[in-house]
Amino acid sequence: MPYVNIKVTREGVTAEQKSELIKGATDLLARVLGKNPATTVVVIDEVDTDNWGIGGESVTKRRLRGL
Amino acid sequence: MPYVNIKVTREGVTAEQKSELIKGATDLLARVLGKNPATTVVVIDEVDTDNWGIGGESVTKRRLRGL
Amino acid sequence: MPYVNIKVTREGVTAEQKSELIKGATDLLARVLGKNPATTVVVIDEVDTDNWGIGGESVTKRRLRGL
Amino acid sequence: MPYVNIKVTREGVTAEQKSELIKGATDLLARVLGKNPATTVVVIDEVDTDNWGIGGESVTKRRLRGL
Amino acid sequence: MPYVNIKVTREGVTAEQKSELIKGATDLLARVLGKNPATTVVVIDEVDTDNWGIGGESVTKRRLRGL
Amino acid sequence: MPYVNIKVTREGVTAEQKSELIKGATDLLARVLGKNPATTVVVIDEVDTDNWGIGGESVTKRRLRGL
Repeated sequence: MPYVNIKVTREGVTAEQKSELIKGATDLLARVLGKNPATTVVVIDEVDTDNWGIGGESVTKRRLRGL
Repeated sequence: MPYVNIKVTREGVTAEQKSELIKGATDLLARVLGKNPATTVVVIDEVDTDNWGIGGESVTKRRLRGL
Repeated sequence: MPYVNIKVTREGVTAEQKSELIKGATDLLARVLGKNPATTVVVIDEVDTDNWGIGGESVTKRRLRGL
Repeated sequence: MPYVNIKVTREGVTAEQKSELIKGATDLLARVLGKNPATTVVVIDEVDTDNWGIGGESVTKRRLRGL
Repeated sequence: MPYVNIKVTREGVTAEQKSELIKGATDLLARVLGKNPATTVVVIDEVDTDNWGIGGESVTKRRLRGL
Repeated sequence: MPYVNIKVTREGVTAEQKSELIKGATDLLARVLGKNPATTVVVIDEVDTDNWGIGGESVTKRRLRGL
């Protein structure tokens, strides 16, 4: 029954990687808390780099600076 | 003043259906808690089937298996 | 499989009212989009009035002013 | 270390405006709570007007009525 | 820089289990997407069983029925 | 109509500081995007330090190490 939301920047995450994140998060909840995988929900949000900020600036600007 | 967030998979939800969800959620809060519809906010997120997991796998894979 | 999050101020919502919100939101998704109630998740967040703002001020202050 | 999520309707927000929101929210947390900008995360969600409701109707319909 | 939110029912999760969830989610993002653990944020929300619904009823009621 | 959610660790934030965050976030949206303060919603979540992780460990553990 847990709900897991993973937010990452939209920078070419593949369907295979998304599947690994879903599987990994579901396994984590089963292993640590004994939660039933059948009702564990995982939602992945991909966020444009213009829309994600850290350190007071967008990731777009950070990428341009090589960060 | 309530805030309602509805997350569903992106599988052809129409503008009319979205309007029904907005109306229905707003009415629900007014009926059960007496909340003022004028300040009730409803946000609908449509999530790609690759990005939604349940039972440890993506909805894309489940759909391929007929689930 | 939908996920619904309802945020309201913490002002004496009863367990019975929460049950009505859960039932109502689940029915809404079933009626409008044909979603399976068995996997529809509803999470209700009750937020202290100090922590909820609208119109640039907290609900605590609004309540003191009779709003 | 704070996390700020800003949701607005998708109505032509520019990259420059997003940068101002990121800078402004980060500065706000530093000024009021002394939070370190280096680890303050800001995520902006732009929501289609069909998917945002207030007053029981979508913003799309409100815009058509001149609101 | 990823942000992970884990929501579970408030049913006696220990500080040690929370640490395992934080470590596990951070490792997952590093392993699958190469994300830097230093800026990966994990937030765990524990939700009262009255406030969590699945199948149209609260978890409180489900627990009383032995589910 | 914007919705802003601010998540910080629960470490003695005062009602006055919360009011400043609400006012500051509302002003920010008005200044940058011309949003109407009357319908701008701000919700502040205070998260226990056991439940917030960064760098793969809880903030509780980081505080014990003087971070």
